[in-house]
Amino acid sequence: MEYPSKLLEEVIDQIAQLPGIGKRTALRLALYLLNQPEEQSETLAGALLKFRKEIKKCKICHTISDKEVCDICNDPARDHSLVCVVEDVRDVMAIENTGEYKGVYHVLGGVISPIEGVSPSDLTISSLLNRIEEKNIREIILALSATIDGDTTNFYLYKKMQQLVQPPAISTIARGIAVGEELEYTDEITLARSIHNRIPFDKAIKQNK
Amino acid sequence: MEYPSKLLEEVIDQIAQLPGIGKRTALRLALYLLNQPEEQSETLAGALLKFRKEIKKCKICHTISDKEVCDICNDPARDHSLVCVVEDVRDVMAIENTGEYKGVYHVLGGVISPIEGVSPSDLTISSLLNRIEEKNIREIILALSATIDGDTTNFYLYKKMQQLVQPPAISTIARGIAVGEELEYTDEITLARSIHNRIPFDKAIKQNK
Repeated sequence: MEYPSKLLEEVIDQIAQLPGIGKRTALRLALYLLNQPEEQSETLAGALLKFRKEIKKCKICHTISDKEVCDICNDPARDHSLVCVVEDVRDVMAIENTGEYKGVYHVLGGVISPIEGVSPSDLTISSLLNRIEEKNIREIILALSATIDGDTTNFYLYKKMQQLVQPPAISTIARGIAVGEELEYTDEITLARSIHNRIPFDKAIKQNK
Repeated sequence: MEYPSKLLEEVIDQIAQLPGIGKRTALRLALYLLNQPEEQSETLAGALLKFRKEIKKCKICHTISDKEVCDICNDPARDHSLVCVVEDVRDVMAIENTGEYKGVYHVLGGVISPIEGVSPSDLTISSLLNRIEEKNIREIILALSATIDGDTTNFYLYKKMQQLVQPPAISTIARGIAVGEELEYTDEITLARSIHNRIPFDKAIKQNK
């Protein structure tokens, strides 16, 4: 496509680098901004920059936060011996929305995926193992997506945790979630129930066979 | 939805103001940017600001341009007595892509729409009428979308131009385009043919009955 303006072409190229946004959508967004007050573009650009520069990850659970230690890890009312292992911050938000979980989290940053080139060292697994050894963790709830990569990661984590001097109890959230479905799109009731009905990992392995 | 971070919430609120982008997509885009190098967010924010601040509209045809007068209006090889009236810059780009049109354009900035509150004074109609009177325009091609609002605007323009001292010839692009379909999504061959086969507006009125 030929553009009547270099500035337009540049902004379209930049917007179209975002996932799921093609050049036509990028053009539509650029023309929309052009019809809005200049302040809207300024606020948007400012929010993007500020977010990218100032956002932190909690040094305990690795979730996105404005602080060194997130509000959940800082909350004395929560059970810090119960850790729910999730893929990313969207899963934390989804579980928090159920209002039924009183433990804390550990954000892995994804799942092990040979196809996408994600190896255990790309995730916060060693941080999790250290945390279990140092912080007297009673139970680990594995709450990864019910996909093949999620299952692979569950097994990897299970084996690693079993090798610890004092392995924690290990559970997985109940499979009320259909296999192949992603955690963040599950409704709150199913998700809450799947946390209540978590089952020992040993038992889960047998059910999979 | 509760967010674990004010910065995240702010950037999501800003992104979700864009048309067709909800909060969940905004969250996905924000997390994507977080996983990319900081430079990508800087370049994106910079391009947005630069585009919004420095982009101009051609003072003759009102299309988006980097200059006071756009490349098309500045091109001596084009027929400046033949003016194609379109809604916005996307339509200019679509017609330019056919490579078959050698006249110039006039970008209305939309169509008259009582429902959306767009009145004739919101469009560049008076600029078009001045242009016809001052610049010795031989023919006007009406190339608005084949929608009710597009038709209304066609009639309005037709009447206004008929009231001029020296009315130009007025044609509309041929309706190879299905009624209700938007101009920018039409394939190039249909679009080029519809320009070749344009018909006098008087004739078009009769066909509509």
